[in-house]
Amino acid sequence: MISFESDYIAGAHPKILERLAETNMEALVGYGDDKYCQMAEEKIKKACNRPNAKVHFLVGGTQTNQVVISSMLADYEGVIAATSGHISVHEGGAIEFTGHKVLTLNGTDGKLNAQDIDEYVTTFYNDGNHEHMVFPGLVYISHPTEYGTLYSKSELTAISNVCKKHNIPLFLDGARLGYGLASRQTDVTLQDIAELCDVFYIGGTKVGALCGEAVVFTHNNTPKHFITKMKQRGALLAKGRLLGIQFDTLFTDNLYMEISRHAIEMAEKLKSLLKGKGYRFYLESPTNQQFIILENEQMSELAQNVCFSFWEKHDDSHTIVRFATSWSTTEEDLRELEKVL
Amino acid sequence: MISFESDYIAGAHPKILERLAETNMEALVGYGDDKYCQMAEEKIKKACNRPNAKVHFLVGGTQTNQVVISSMLADYEGVIAATSGHISVHEGGAIEFTGHKVLTLNGTDGKLNAQDIDEYVTTFYNDGNHEHMVFPGLVYISHPTEYGTLYSKSELTAISNVCKKHNIPLFLDGARLGYGLASRQTDVTLQDIAELCDVFYIGGTKVGALCGEAVVFTHNNTPKHFITKMKQRGALLAKGRLLGIQFDTLFTDNLYMEISRHAIEMAEKLKSLLKGKGYRFYLESPTNQQFIILENEQMSELAQNVCFSFWEKHDDSHTIVRFATSWSTTEEDLRELEKVL
Amino acid sequence: MISFESDYIAGAHPKILERLAETNMEALVGYGDDKYCQMAEEKIKKACNRPNAKVHFLVGGTQTNQVVISSMLADYEGVIAATSGHISVHEGGAIEFTGHKVLTLNGTDGKLNAQDIDEYVTTFYNDGNHEHMVFPGLVYISHPTEYGTLYSKSELTAISNVCKKHNIPLFLDGARLGYGLASRQTDVTLQDIAELCDVFYIGGTKVGALCGEAVVFTHNNTPKHFITKMKQRGALLAKGRLLGIQFDTLFTDNLYMEISRHAIEMAEKLKSLLKGKGYRFYLESPTNQQFIILENEQMSELAQNVCFSFWEKHDDSHTIVRFATSWSTTEEDLRELEKVL
Amino acid sequence: MISFESDYIAGAHPKILERLAETNMEALVGYGDDKYCQMAEEKIKKACNRPNAKVHFLVGGTQTNQVVISSMLADYEGVIAATSGHISVHEGGAIEFTGHKVLTLNGTDGKLNAQDIDEYVTTFYNDGNHEHMVFPGLVYISHPTEYGTLYSKSELTAISNVCKKHNIPLFLDGARLGYGLASRQTDVTLQDIAELCDVFYIGGTKVGALCGEAVVFTHNNTPKHFITKMKQRGALLAKGRLLGIQFDTLFTDNLYMEISRHAIEMAEKLKSLLKGKGYRFYLESPTNQQFIILENEQMSELAQNVCFSFWEKHDDSHTIVRFATSWSTTEEDLRELEKVL
Repeated sequence: MISFESDYIAGAHPKILERLAETNMEALVGYGDDKYCQMAEEKIKKACNRPNAKVHFLVGGTQTNQVVISSMLADYEGVIAATSGHISVHEGGAIEFTGHKVLTLNGTDGKLNAQDIDEYVTTFYNDGNHEHMVFPGLVYISHPTEYGTLYSKSELTAISNVCKKHNIPLFLDGARLGYGLASRQTDVTLQDIAELCDVFYIGGTKVGALCGEAVVFTHNNTPKHFITKMKQRGALLAKGRLLGIQFDTLFTDNLYMEISRHAIEMAEKLKSLLKGKGYRFYLESPTNQQFIILENEQMSELAQNVCFSFWEKHDDSHTIVRFATSWSTTEEDLRELEKVL
Repeated sequence: MISFESDYIAGAHPKILERLAETNMEALVGYGDDKYCQMAEEKIKKACNRPNAKVHFLVGGTQTNQVVISSMLADYEGVIAATSGHISVHEGGAIEFTGHKVLTLNGTDGKLNAQDIDEYVTTFYNDGNHEHMVFPGLVYISHPTEYGTLYSKSELTAISNVCKKHNIPLFLDGARLGYGLASRQTDVTLQDIAELCDVFYIGGTKVGALCGEAVVFTHNNTPKHFITKMKQRGALLAKGRLLGIQFDTLFTDNLYMEISRHAIEMAEKLKSLLKGKGYRFYLESPTNQQFIILENEQMSELAQNVCFSFWEKHDDSHTIVRFATSWSTTEEDLRELEKVL
Repeated sequence: MISFESDYIAGAHPKILERLAETNMEALVGYGDDKYCQMAEEKIKKACNRPNAKVHFLVGGTQTNQVVISSMLADYEGVIAATSGHISVHEGGAIEFTGHKVLTLNGTDGKLNAQDIDEYVTTFYNDGNHEHMVFPGLVYISHPTEYGTLYSKSELTAISNVCKKHNIPLFLDGARLGYGLASRQTDVTLQDIAELCDVFYIGGTKVGALCGEAVVFTHNNTPKHFITKMKQRGALLAKGRLLGIQFDTLFTDNLYMEISRHAIEMAEKLKSLLKGKGYRFYLESPTNQQFIILENEQMSELAQNVCFSFWEKHDDSHTIVRFATSWSTTEEDLRELEKVL
Repeated sequence: MISFESDYIAGAHPKILERLAETNMEALVGYGDDKYCQMAEEKIKKACNRPNAKVHFLVGGTQTNQVVISSMLADYEGVIAATSGHISVHEGGAIEFTGHKVLTLNGTDGKLNAQDIDEYVTTFYNDGNHEHMVFPGLVYISHPTEYGTLYSKSELTAISNVCKKHNIPLFLDGARLGYGLASRQTDVTLQDIAELCDVFYIGGTKVGALCGEAVVFTHNNTPKHFITKMKQRGALLAKGRLLGIQFDTLFTDNLYMEISRHAIEMAEKLKSLLKGKGYRFYLESPTNQQFIILENEQMSELAQNVCFSFWEKHDDSHTIVRFATSWSTTEEDLRELEKVL
């Protein structure tokens, strides 16, 4: 059965498997100190145009959010996020597990708004009682968001400016970063992100790797003893090579962007197909995740021939579902889908 | 200057100080095993009409919320509370510090609604993805709420029933419980609360004690090794007598209710006074906290002659302030206030 | 029955109760901002001869250890303590509860040794693998120790120097500080402690107060947002006056030292009495706690007429027990004990 | 340069890479629900002869220890381990990070002794003060230990019996389990371990996998909502297939044991070689890690031609170093080493 269930249904891009095989018998040191991690770091720094950046490799998205956020916050601080943010709802309380509150603001289509952040922080410090409250210590945004939407360069700049104004670092969750960068409706580049954020990560798991996320501290601002913090959170991989080799491959010959562009091309075709068939979209997504509203019966029927994700109940008789493309989606998949629809 | 700033501006009810002095030189064992703690427990159980209840004494409100909530939750669980709940906003992230999320629902005037809880929990378990989310493991309500409002018996019963239906314990924060029980507009008794809640506490700090909150586990449901959990959270008082003697006094000859009724009488007079002078109320509070909306200039002027609490900004030119009465408020205070107004 | 069970068997020194009664009806602000907390702070700073010190008041010893230690450590750090240290064994894991490891070194009679600390830290940093280990971030000592023993000024200076050398703060648990300062065999003054330690506390609970410990950050080194950290750990008392008034009283007219000297006088008489009767001492204690070794049968018999503490099993037929004196011990108690023995 | 630095210097066993490549384009569900995870689970249950077991796959050793231990302990409990245990010293405080104390007992050559555990727990419950202490809630052992040593079947049975007697679960860290099972000096089988322990894990990272550990809960005793606990700790891999496929391969045609036996064969040859050359062994290890004592100068010289691990300082002029073999060690490596020596 064809599947648009998620962007992590397949293994890894074949070039990654090739490189793992080629390097397999090399004796390398562990814990991220091997030459492939170093090479990957250099390539990423170059792609970001941030010579003072520092790159660390982690295994998965929730782990990365947990390690980065809890490493950057003082204990009296929490992290500002959209109510719909992944850390707010779908990570099993991983942030609270480390002792920190997620301070939620209502966003729009998964996005935070610079003015809302500004107001929240300003109001906080004006409150005479704020010493009895959780201090805002970090701003978390995802790009693309959980709804596939993107910040424009001006929106991102505005958020970055608010953060600078209040001296609060900005963290961008890029679990699907490639699909954001490759979107046809974006004016945001990797270099913009590296300039505007204090820390962000380049998602591997959902963009062609077996696993892995590359965290970029953009200006010599890695938390002190970050390796120990990773270890303490169970997040330091013994065979760091597994991550280094994958990211080295993804950042060689522009593979990361090539993969991402392919997924976007597939997504645009999927969108046309669905629009052509009269399907109703929940929102306009410029990336690889497309959300449509189905009648419940229609959904059950469709589910017999194609895999997609249940997203959320829309009303008593309708449901929002997600179709995702990825590096592994093929024209053949789309043709099959067309038949099914 | 007269003060309506809070209900903890004075020391303790004189009878408490007397009893502390009378018992001062008795040699007693520590950590809550002394005879006064036992006597206080018996009196509270009787007042609650719960022979199987177990009572523990803690020092303050935030501590009590932290100890009780973190002791009752499994690690994958969070606590449902109103967005305005004290644990959500004004306890410095004390719940998150213990690793748990506060799951917020919008309430009305500080109160949760049974149906909202039911919907939240039902939706949670219907979500195919709920294993990636924080499980609802406890419901937290305050009575009186942070806005001085009260649950009616039917509202409380409805919440209790929803909790039973979903097998989620109900915890009532009674930091100001006396002022709720003594309200002229309540149909809820201490025995009702003890019947409808799984755990609640009887506030001492704000109702005539120097410090102290009496936690009642209503049906033999004290968390295992609760003493160790208190110790582990820094909440086990060496001289437990300080709490036992105070609560023994408060529950002798109905002192707790007498104190509370006095505060309510003062509050009702305060309300009449303010209404008579044409002040605008933010909401209708049936307890000892009264919230009024002042023009900002009017507020500054008034603040020169009487102490009250800044509550929150209402709009650019108005502010919500709180006047609180307590066991220590006198007719003289009200006369002075009348002059000032 | 006479009791030498602990130094917290009685209420408070009568002067404290008097002052609580005298100030009872004053309207004061909460959370430690009242004038009595300020007055107490000033008197303590003066007694310590540390004009740049900052004083905070907490309720109990375990709470104070937990709040201070967890507030001073980075998350990748642990606290060095003696294996017998109170935080290592008798606080229910309160330090670990906040995420930090207690790094134990074997001490002698409850005391750490400067050289052992030096070696431990030096070895740690020489270990190529130390990034996978918990960093030593604080040194914890108690004075008097859990065995009633004391550091000499030269021992304390040596530890302080090792700490400075490695840039690790020194924290002294003074739950029984008065009894150490008033010992006839000490050359350590309060001012020495304030000079040699980065943070320490002056115990109230065991030295005449109903409750309360005064934490002294000796050189403008209070952790950032310490009030919020206290709140977050459930340790910020609403009626801070209760602590302020008590410490203001204890530091007026030298009451703290007077109380302590009395307890030491009683302890010296107790020691003579026990020695005279041929009792075997577990160790030589210069303070208010005396440890003797009893045959098990002898212990059971004695326990029928006098309260003391079981300390630990010595061998199959002998047990170590503790007799403690305090401000509340009387000559009469000693006469009674003499009869019993 | 030849390397005996660790057992994780190479990538994965070639058969694993092959299977990853073969299955790469299959569309599979995430988070461990795919068919390969299920197949691997079935094979492991069969190899363990435990039809009621449940198997979960995690990424690395420290993560596994952290997730399993913190999921099995009540909050007032700690875990008993040898002072030299990996969780005690080399995991950056990962257990304490989750709020739990590691209760250390001195072991012998990395091994705990049944009688010591029995005594510790018995003494704990006999201590009248144990409610102020951390309860022993789990016993952690490693097999092979950090020193390469092994428990005999009778030692393991004795520990298991002590645990059952006190109703404390037994957890075995099998990060190098294969090398223990394949040792020529063991009488312990995988089935013995599955019978004697409540939970253990089969190490993949150090025994031929790119990453991965298979946790076996042996008798239907998986902690409630374990998936959520994994997620909450950042330990739930999106592409669970990566772990499922690897363990399915390792448990097909006995590959896991074949790999392990090869490493042991290499280790035995290495041992002969070193003994033949007169090297001094720190202890007698029957597994793939060999510890020898070198003069410091000799060590520096040797380090120029062969990689090994610094273990610990032996005395001022000698150092303990470790040589490890693994599935990837070749006869050629040994010949090269012989030349160098």
